[in-house]
Amino acid sequence: MSQFINNRENAVTEAIDGVLDVSGGTLARLDGYPHIRVVVRSDWDKKKVAVISGGGSGHEPAHAGFVGKGMLTAAICGDVFASPSVDAILAGILAVTGPAGCLLVVKNYTGDRLNFGLAAERARAYGLNVSMVIVDDDIALPGLAQSRGVAGTLFVHKIAGALAERGGDLEAVVAGARRAIASISTIGMSLDTCTVPGSPKENRIPDGSAELGLGIHGEAGVEQIEYSTVKAAVAAMTERLAAVMGDRPHVALVNNLGGTSVLEMSIIVHELIKSQIGDRIAHVVGPAPMMTSLDMQGFSISVYPAEKDELELLTEPVALTAWPGVVTLKPRKVLALPDGITPITPLPSRHEPTRQFMLACCNLLIGAEKDLNALDAKSGDGDTGSTLSGAAHALIAALDRLPLSDHTQLLRAIGQELSQTMGGSSGVLLAIFFAAAGDGASSGLTMRDALKAGLARMQEIGGANVGDRTMVDALSPALDALSEGIAAAAAKARAGANLTATLLQAKAGRAAYINAKQLEGHIDPGAEAVARLFEHLASREDGSQTR
Amino acid sequence: MSQFINNRENAVTEAIDGVLDVSGGTLARLDGYPHIRVVVRSDWDKKKVAVISGGGSGHEPAHAGFVGKGMLTAAICGDVFASPSVDAILAGILAVTGPAGCLLVVKNYTGDRLNFGLAAERARAYGLNVSMVIVDDDIALPGLAQSRGVAGTLFVHKIAGALAERGGDLEAVVAGARRAIASISTIGMSLDTCTVPGSPKENRIPDGSAELGLGIHGEAGVEQIEYSTVKAAVAAMTERLAAVMGDRPHVALVNNLGGTSVLEMSIIVHELIKSQIGDRIAHVVGPAPMMTSLDMQGFSISVYPAEKDELELLTEPVALTAWPGVVTLKPRKVLALPDGITPITPLPSRHEPTRQFMLACCNLLIGAEKDLNALDAKSGDGDTGSTLSGAAHALIAALDRLPLSDHTQLLRAIGQELSQTMGGSSGVLLAIFFAAAGDGASSGLTMRDALKAGLARMQEIGGANVGDRTMVDALSPALDALSEGIAAAAAKARAGANLTATLLQAKAGRAAYINAKQLEGHIDPGAEAVARLFEHLASREDGSQTR
Repeated sequence: MSQFINNRENAVTEAIDGVLDVSGGTLARLDGYPHIRVVVRSDWDKKKVAVISGGGSGHEPAHAGFVGKGMLTAAICGDVFASPSVDAILAGILAVTGPAGCLLVVKNYTGDRLNFGLAAERARAYGLNVSMVIVDDDIALPGLAQSRGVAGTLFVHKIAGALAERGGDLEAVVAGARRAIASISTIGMSLDTCTVPGSPKENRIPDGSAELGLGIHGEAGVEQIEYSTVKAAVAAMTERLAAVMGDRPHVALVNNLGGTSVLEMSIIVHELIKSQIGDRIAHVVGPAPMMTSLDMQGFSISVYPAEKDELELLTEPVALTAWPGVVTLKPRKVLALPDGITPITPLPSRHEPTRQFMLACCNLLIGAEKDLNALDAKSGDGDTGSTLSGAAHALIAALDRLPLSDHTQLLRAIGQELSQTMGGSSGVLLAIFFAAAGDGASSGLTMRDALKAGLARMQEIGGANVGDRTMVDALSPALDALSEGIAAAAAKARAGANLTATLLQAKAGRAAYINAKQLEGHIDPGAEAVARLFEHLASREDGSQTR
Repeated sequence: MSQFINNRENAVTEAIDGVLDVSGGTLARLDGYPHIRVVVRSDWDKKKVAVISGGGSGHEPAHAGFVGKGMLTAAICGDVFASPSVDAILAGILAVTGPAGCLLVVKNYTGDRLNFGLAAERARAYGLNVSMVIVDDDIALPGLAQSRGVAGTLFVHKIAGALAERGGDLEAVVAGARRAIASISTIGMSLDTCTVPGSPKENRIPDGSAELGLGIHGEAGVEQIEYSTVKAAVAAMTERLAAVMGDRPHVALVNNLGGTSVLEMSIIVHELIKSQIGDRIAHVVGPAPMMTSLDMQGFSISVYPAEKDELELLTEPVALTAWPGVVTLKPRKVLALPDGITPITPLPSRHEPTRQFMLACCNLLIGAEKDLNALDAKSGDGDTGSTLSGAAHALIAALDRLPLSDHTQLLRAIGQELSQTMGGSSGVLLAIFFAAAGDGASSGLTMRDALKAGLARMQEIGGANVGDRTMVDALSPALDALSEGIAAAAAKARAGANLTATLLQAKAGRAAYINAKQLEGHIDPGAEAVARLFEHLASREDGSQTR
């Protein structure tokens, strides 16, 4: 399984540099690569309480992505899924801690506790005021005295960061963090394991199963459950959350563990809001990747019964793209469909010459079905003749309900009929041609110019130019020559159609995907249909004139 | 391959409802499920030009995620990777278009062009002023007349949205969109295919290969290339981008195609900035998922030589979490490491009684190595004796450089030595114990209280309470009894240690993972070490008193 890394050893430092690169100068790092990977606010002046977090990497955007005004002051980044060294943590503490002291926000994993704990001791020996809180929001194993710290940690970062930003002293920041920690609960679920850089992927979760109650280091969930639908999955999670939630309104944090698609995450949050705890969720953070397990196809839900003052802290804006903000749930708004989607049926009217004209055109297309299919078989799927013939039959059947005496209305009505009866791209394109021509006619253009306006619109939408081996090659020169009479137009249409047999590089339509050799010597079926139509109309006109 | 959906049929509508759910009431949808899936701004008043986009679903957060003030007015969502119907598009146009008209931003895929084109015709028949632009930013096939529309479309949404928000008329909005489209170039790369809901995953890309020049519908890239590192991958992409870029500063949009981890995306953007086009990139949007292909492990890079006025439009703030904003690149800031990471070495001093005391303790631990290892073998990996003996040897070797005559300094120095010489959690915990005790002593506590402060800190960090079957079970009662003399303390330590043999549910330390039956009757080795130390000290005291 390839990954977008250069090598395992440099993955974390290169990723941190990428975070710095796109921070717009708001972040800096300490000069301690490769072992000391500490990201700090570049505008920090040590007057306020510093809020420091960190731990193993592989949880991006945590932790470096949450360094910024109103959240973390510094992030200490270990190797992937490994605690940072005591020296690295100490460096981070020393870099950002001033007289106001600092708070270390540590997730409840042994390595992190010990290393952050020892670094705190070493920092205290320098007279610094260092406090530490341990986040233990995971409820996967309700009986366990030492729950893991997982995505609920984001709430703690936000609360502590906002309190510190407001100028609260260390005691107040610690108290706020502790109070939040005491009430946050998280549960995770995954359909697949994650890919640790440089290691083969463990295929632990069979198809049709999910793991419930995950940490954030690829470790197995506390149970493997049968997986059927996201509804059932969310129900299994919310059942466990419901057991530890009070009746107060909660903030839910919906965290993408890394590899879940945005489409899936939206369905997940929708199921959450419809779930048994939905009526206790008043606010949502996410869905977004916040505390990930690399590329894990999973997610976690954290719930936090934030009191009013806590909610204010949570909603204080921060300029961090990784923090999606808090949304207050409102009822879903559904608006009535606008009028006009069902097309207005024009009033039918009679006009015998028009009726005869249309019948003639339709019958010509019906008669050309086999020839056009044969031509299409050279470059497409051999159905152009049948498509046009089918449309012609449908138009004939519709003649009595068409506004035959009003040519402007008629063009639009033909477009409408074709869009409803003719399949595929050609149906839509002809519908656009007739609709735009009708538009042109209604705005006062002559019929010739209206048809040219229709062609222009069809070309714009379809993307075909003259020379692209489409019906445009016959239609465009024919319309241009129409001012010289129908015979001239027919001659141009035929010449244009014949030319398509020499155009070996189709640029639009299905023939664009066909080998040039296969096209040689064969006229494009759409162009041929246009040429035959014009030739037929010319012969009718000629006949009526000689008569 | 399971996915977090309920069924293929409802995936898109449920995802849209999820987007509405977390929109805080800023979005609404039209009442046309299942076929008409249109998301609109709920605060729209039709006075300004409406900017409408859409297409197939599966590209989330595009398109619904970009509906909001300053970007899209409405998003028309088709099925996964399928164009929305003409009726759906028409409904969207009719719902949001007023006298100022609307702009349709359409990506260059045949289905989208045709359906949006025909819907525009139908809307025009109602007298609405509808314009349409086709985005064709993909440069995968430079010779192709009709390039696909991919992630560069986001730039067009932002430019058109900002112009419309400023109150520009339709002509101005169209002109801005056209100008942007003419200069945007995008190329994509992927290591894996995507998983279409309800369909089996196509395993088209072999391990060690990547596809270059992708669309956003899971279609194959124009070439499969050998994949080695992200550096080489980005180089292959930037070579193609360089060929079409001018010398002006560009904005780069770095788009996650859905399943790439945040860690990888940061490395990608870092490589981009170091690449051959890095010096022409002045601003970055992302990295973030903006125009995805479901869960595809891939990304795209779009470049846009935005002029000053265009940059102003791009950077105008919008309250949309899906739009990550534009960051101006600044040089990476690297700060010097703070002083104090290398521990200050205390001045050595001599004090023969202390030296003898420490020697006695160390020798006792050295002598107990085998016994303690044997006890540890019952509940751990059998190395507690060796670990403590090794630490004791190291302390003896360090005696001459320790501040023996200053007990406050000495405690800290012992902590420092242990943190450097003793491996594992126990080394860190003892280091914390001695460091915190030294802290306590330096702040004026008696030695007994200083040691108790050390114990409290060690318990806080290690998480072990009395009764958890650790050394705390001996150390805690011993320190409590120390005021009654060393003999009393030793008796309490022994009693506490013996009690651990009856504690069958270890809650901290490695023994927490061991079966209760295996623990029965065996004293915890850490507690045993503490008891032996206290007993030895009591016998020395006793000897010195009787002597």
